[in-house]
Amino acid sequence: MIGGGQGAFIGAVHRIAARIDDEYELVCGAFSSDAAKSKASGIALGLEESRVYSSYHELIEQEKALPEHLRVQVISIVTPNHVHFEPAKMALENGFEVVIDKPITFTLAEAQQLEAVITRTGKLLCLTHTYTGYPMVKQARQLVADGKIGKLRKVYVEYPQGWLSAFEEGNQSNKQAAWRTDPSKSGIAGAMGDIGTHAFNLAEYVTGLSVTQLCADINTVVEGRRLDDDGAVLLKFDNGVSGVLMATQVATGAENNVKIRVYGEAGGVEWQQDDANTLIVRYPDKPSEIWRTGGGYNSSFATHNTRTPAGHPEGYLEAFANLYRNFAQTLKARYKGEEPTAEQLDYPGIQEGVRGMAFIENVIASGKSEQKWTPFKI
Amino acid sequence: MIGGGQGAFIGAVHRIAARIDDEYELVCGAFSSDAAKSKASGIALGLEESRVYSSYHELIEQEKALPEHLRVQVISIVTPNHVHFEPAKMALENGFEVVIDKPITFTLAEAQQLEAVITRTGKLLCLTHTYTGYPMVKQARQLVADGKIGKLRKVYVEYPQGWLSAFEEGNQSNKQAAWRTDPSKSGIAGAMGDIGTHAFNLAEYVTGLSVTQLCADINTVVEGRRLDDDGAVLLKFDNGVSGVLMATQVATGAENNVKIRVYGEAGGVEWQQDDANTLIVRYPDKPSEIWRTGGGYNSSFATHNTRTPAGHPEGYLEAFANLYRNFAQTLKARYKGEEPTAEQLDYPGIQEGVRGMAFIENVIASGKSEQKWTPFKI
Amino acid sequence: MIGGGQGAFIGAVHRIAARIDDEYELVCGAFSSDAAKSKASGIALGLEESRVYSSYHELIEQEKALPEHLRVQVISIVTPNHVHFEPAKMALENGFEVVIDKPITFTLAEAQQLEAVITRTGKLLCLTHTYTGYPMVKQARQLVADGKIGKLRKVYVEYPQGWLSAFEEGNQSNKQAAWRTDPSKSGIAGAMGDIGTHAFNLAEYVTGLSVTQLCADINTVVEGRRLDDDGAVLLKFDNGVSGVLMATQVATGAENNVKIRVYGEAGGVEWQQDDANTLIVRYPDKPSEIWRTGGGYNSSFATHNTRTPAGHPEGYLEAFANLYRNFAQTLKARYKGEEPTAEQLDYPGIQEGVRGMAFIENVIASGKSEQKWTPFKI
Amino acid sequence: MIGGGQGAFIGAVHRIAARIDDEYELVCGAFSSDAAKSKASGIALGLEESRVYSSYHELIEQEKALPEHLRVQVISIVTPNHVHFEPAKMALENGFEVVIDKPITFTLAEAQQLEAVITRTGKLLCLTHTYTGYPMVKQARQLVADGKIGKLRKVYVEYPQGWLSAFEEGNQSNKQAAWRTDPSKSGIAGAMGDIGTHAFNLAEYVTGLSVTQLCADINTVVEGRRLDDDGAVLLKFDNGVSGVLMATQVATGAENNVKIRVYGEAGGVEWQQDDANTLIVRYPDKPSEIWRTGGGYNSSFATHNTRTPAGHPEGYLEAFANLYRNFAQTLKARYKGEEPTAEQLDYPGIQEGVRGMAFIENVIASGKSEQKWTPFKI
Repeated sequence: MIGGGQGAFIGAVHRIAARIDDEYELVCGAFSSDAAKSKASGIALGLEESRVYSSYHELIEQEKALPEHLRVQVISIVTPNHVHFEPAKMALENGFEVVIDKPITFTLAEAQQLEAVITRTGKLLCLTHTYTGYPMVKQARQLVADGKIGKLRKVYVEYPQGWLSAFEEGNQSNKQAAWRTDPSKSGIAGAMGDIGTHAFNLAEYVTGLSVTQLCADINTVVEGRRLDDDGAVLLKFDNGVSGVLMATQVATGAENNVKIRVYGEAGGVEWQQDDANTLIVRYPDKPSEIWRTGGGYNSSFATHNTRTPAGHPEGYLEAFANLYRNFAQTLKARYKGEEPTAEQLDYPGIQEGVRGMAFIENVIASGKSEQKWTPFKI
Repeated sequence: MIGGGQGAFIGAVHRIAARIDDEYELVCGAFSSDAAKSKASGIALGLEESRVYSSYHELIEQEKALPEHLRVQVISIVTPNHVHFEPAKMALENGFEVVIDKPITFTLAEAQQLEAVITRTGKLLCLTHTYTGYPMVKQARQLVADGKIGKLRKVYVEYPQGWLSAFEEGNQSNKQAAWRTDPSKSGIAGAMGDIGTHAFNLAEYVTGLSVTQLCADINTVVEGRRLDDDGAVLLKFDNGVSGVLMATQVATGAENNVKIRVYGEAGGVEWQQDDANTLIVRYPDKPSEIWRTGGGYNSSFATHNTRTPAGHPEGYLEAFANLYRNFAQTLKARYKGEEPTAEQLDYPGIQEGVRGMAFIENVIASGKSEQKWTPFKI
Repeated sequence: MIGGGQGAFIGAVHRIAARIDDEYELVCGAFSSDAAKSKASGIALGLEESRVYSSYHELIEQEKALPEHLRVQVISIVTPNHVHFEPAKMALENGFEVVIDKPITFTLAEAQQLEAVITRTGKLLCLTHTYTGYPMVKQARQLVADGKIGKLRKVYVEYPQGWLSAFEEGNQSNKQAAWRTDPSKSGIAGAMGDIGTHAFNLAEYVTGLSVTQLCADINTVVEGRRLDDDGAVLLKFDNGVSGVLMATQVATGAENNVKIRVYGEAGGVEWQQDDANTLIVRYPDKPSEIWRTGGGYNSSFATHNTRTPAGHPEGYLEAFANLYRNFAQTLKARYKGEEPTAEQLDYPGIQEGVRGMAFIENVIASGKSEQKWTPFKI
Repeated sequence: MIGGGQGAFIGAVHRIAARIDDEYELVCGAFSSDAAKSKASGIALGLEESRVYSSYHELIEQEKALPEHLRVQVISIVTPNHVHFEPAKMALENGFEVVIDKPITFTLAEAQQLEAVITRTGKLLCLTHTYTGYPMVKQARQLVADGKIGKLRKVYVEYPQGWLSAFEEGNQSNKQAAWRTDPSKSGIAGAMGDIGTHAFNLAEYVTGLSVTQLCADINTVVEGRRLDDDGAVLLKFDNGVSGVLMATQVATGAENNVKIRVYGEAGGVEWQQDDANTLIVRYPDKPSEIWRTGGGYNSSFATHNTRTPAGHPEGYLEAFANLYRNFAQTLKARYKGEEPTAEQLDYPGIQEGVRGMAFIENVIASGKSEQKWTPFKI
């Protein structure tokens, strides 16, 4: 693991997610750019001291020097955005597989370079767009793909948070707020990069469509903040489908209820994280249905990503774990020379990373533009 | 009553709404432009045959000719949009008070003319924007006005319907669909006029702010339809507040769950019609609260518009009735030479009508414009 | 109307319910045993002074003396329980039809006498068990009757209130609390009579079954109270179905969320007043369904009792109005010599009244008994 | 681990729960009474073959023979009920700590013997009553303990399941159904042992009260079934508090929505697993509150058992993991000679096990008794 030292939120989440299905063992780490802090973190995690490194360079070099059967296979990169590209590139080029937090890089250009590295090295990358790990999100995608709601027409996706509703940047105990609102660490986008990319990815994942044009209202609401903390985007997808994406971090009191609604000619699907094990399916002329995680009627994609019977709620950590597990299963199949199943291959990767970075660049540009519709450029 | 003959949906709603609080008695009507149908409707409603008229002209003229104590006092206009302005104007000019369905007229210019008529005649008009009649919508407005959620920053309002998700226009049994999608009867807007105006009114009512700029994506999704059936609008309000308005009639399977969320620096309020007796109030640092119709802690505005104790749900018809009742109470106070209370005056009137028509014209223009932000012009 | 003077809760509810569908006109009343108060109430309601009476005896006698076409046809009795039987009996014996609030009488014996009076006079009686007026409760009953959930096995019905969670009896402004907890006015039961009867009626209505045995835990929780304010009852129904009934008025903070769940071999139905326009239907092997008021797929019984399209919530007052309307339609059909339809006949009457009183006597006796199961005796 | 071979539901749950917080490492197991199956299961789990045993006797004996630093410390027993007591006793007597699934033993007498063994050996035992592991259940308990809802008066606890709504016993693929309905493996109770004990434990945990009397209706609904599959119990607790417990496995279509409501003089708390991260707190005179997992206002007990910020749902596996983690932390503190904190000690143990077995014996006896109230005997 690179990053995720003591006190980091997302590093701990990655470690739990990796552990849940027993597909990974944490064997080494460079948990902080501060060598002492990295050491302390690694020891607290029970690692052998010799495999707690003081930088990602050191980690990659020294692990590469180990005999293959001892060497780490997959490197998780959970650092702030500005320290994504370099370690990912170096890891891939040195023979490691990579799990990386979103957004994948600091710029679109870096994401495209990473794509080239992956093509060249044949190594794999998993990008942790958590929300697509939920079984009922997968079920929604499957129902759409199966034509259950007919030809698509409308997409609403929203991600309201309130945790940045005040100026938290100066608050030393809120490191998240500090780096996520700092352009030198987060990139050109704040809310749009942090959660807008999740909403965008969720919309493209469930619909199977691509955004082709957009028109964005991007705001910095809290005084003194250096990046956007709020935005709403009108969207055009393939096939004339239209949509709306809303992402904000200043909806005071809101938690994290990412929600998607997709409507087609024959019905609609609605999912939200606050009731994550439920998928509502609507029809024009019969009762709506409540599809549930664990229901025997679900598709293989939902079932493959479920551990417990219906009514035993699975949550955010399990959704996150599904990404890790599917990636592990894909790798294991490949190591054995087998073809991974469609269910195993169902994790976000470099394509989603490139599109996510393109979303960031396009949405910020649109926010500044006086032109209404701008094409989604990659 | 003008309009609302047999088979009409909204006419029957108006009659129930007027009856609930026993403030009105139906005494005369011109229920259809077809004299025989008007007659049949009036008789079925138990009216004296002599006061069932064959046109609104006849109704206004003959009622005016009656002695004052027998004459109708308030005329409800529940016809399609293209037959709003003329009867309203004529009624006001002949000494009657008017209740009228939304949108108030066919064009903004007509609404402005009506405003002049009202100023000149001193007669009053009540515009039936139903959703502002709900006690918990009033409570939301009051909490905002009292500063409970601090300086406002973000507004989301949405109105998803699915009843026009297929081409219903040719369906003879669906008269609603026929006239609401016919530009000669509905005006320049379909969904934006029918439900977009409700959402717009709700947003301005709850926040106490005015829209100043907008950027609209207006669509006609169903093939063959002649007016818009879907739209999403980015909004700017006074004081730098931004918002999103979504209104669609093609969200297949959706019913009528109009919803508003408003966030300020100190909290947020959230209301939706599917749970109409509940208002969620959110805070950054303490548990969210569930405010309920009938709760002893509500403001005088909510309480004044509630008939039953908490837990006895009041619905759409009661919300509608609140408009009728408040209008009646205002009229009665004026007739007695008294000043109506703020609670009695709390019904939508000509100002809301003019702004609603301006919304229609601005939003349709923006939908056609290549310019991103356009000022909200009246 | 007998009872329901100024300040009374349920009298006002009856009047609104009667008005909503324009099937009744309030023409006379004896609104209070205090003649002056009755007069003031009647005048405030806009009645002719000559038809505001100072007692129910006077009302019945003087109305009977009027010519038939002027005379009141239906008398609503909305007094406290101890003034139910006498006016109901007198009204029926003098040729009037009766609407009466629940519980129907003070004792079971009185209810049985009333049954005999009805048989003898051929007059009709409607008992206002409001909750069976909800469209989705009717839909639940219909699905059960149609075998949609198979052979029944389990019934849960609950009615949690909190309005008597403190000692309100001495509070002069809370007249409800005063008489409902006074054995000389309410009868032998408090909560069991006031709301337990509703729960019991709802269970028998939805299932179509009769309770045959019961085992009750009846409590007076608030110190100083003279009647029960809480109870739970184990039930046996016909056909070996078992159930649980819970009714309490001391669930502090609870409003009025009466709820029923019925399970059969092939599925279950679940309804609660807080989401009154929704009926959840569950199956062992496919997604649960959300049946909604106004859905085109509902039975004629639900549809007959619905005024607005799906998504326009109907509430408590509309449910109440359904009882009044169905009763009016039954009477009108009979007056015309026609057979009322099954939908029109679908209102609670004397049988439900007798069973309700039997419930009160059986449940209070069981509460005092050391015997576990006691037969449900009539 | 003893039990939990391939295909077992609860064994896999235990393993995930133990892994989530990285406090345990699976080092050995006797996963089945079938040696070959045990071996296969252990190897699939990645264990060293030498530490996959063919019986629990072998496991305990051989592990005991290992040097202390290599030896397993905690043994999880996840077998059917009839194989709980012997391995638990043997493990404790040979110096191991024990995690054990509920109900703790086959009979109350065994539970009491186990209590004596624990007293004698000083070893610790954790009983996996999962539902008390949820942060918002802990918050409910804390609010009650802090007097937030005043002197208690009423408890409703329910556990409706539908998975045994048909005769599944003969279904070879449903091993759960087979053993849980077999008196030789499950004990004298079916539903009451499997889920009634959970409901009972939850009620005593949240209220801090003990059941003193009960009156049970115990049913075997599905023909051919050998144990109860349904029951409802009237309860008396300390201090005159009354309650109702409902547990059924034949509520067709119900999943697993265990729910508890507790009311006191000053308010109420309501929690249900379907919305596990929410606790509703009700008051007589102010808006209800929505307390949420991750809220900064929660008690140290809720916070200690939460991994992610509010809005990132934690579910059943995390609740289960909380038991494992608290037990591990308690053990670690003791091994270091420190006093565990109250939060660490907050896991169910032998007392809860004894009371759970007493519940089973008392409730089955009451179900057969003709006496109404029977004392809760231990």
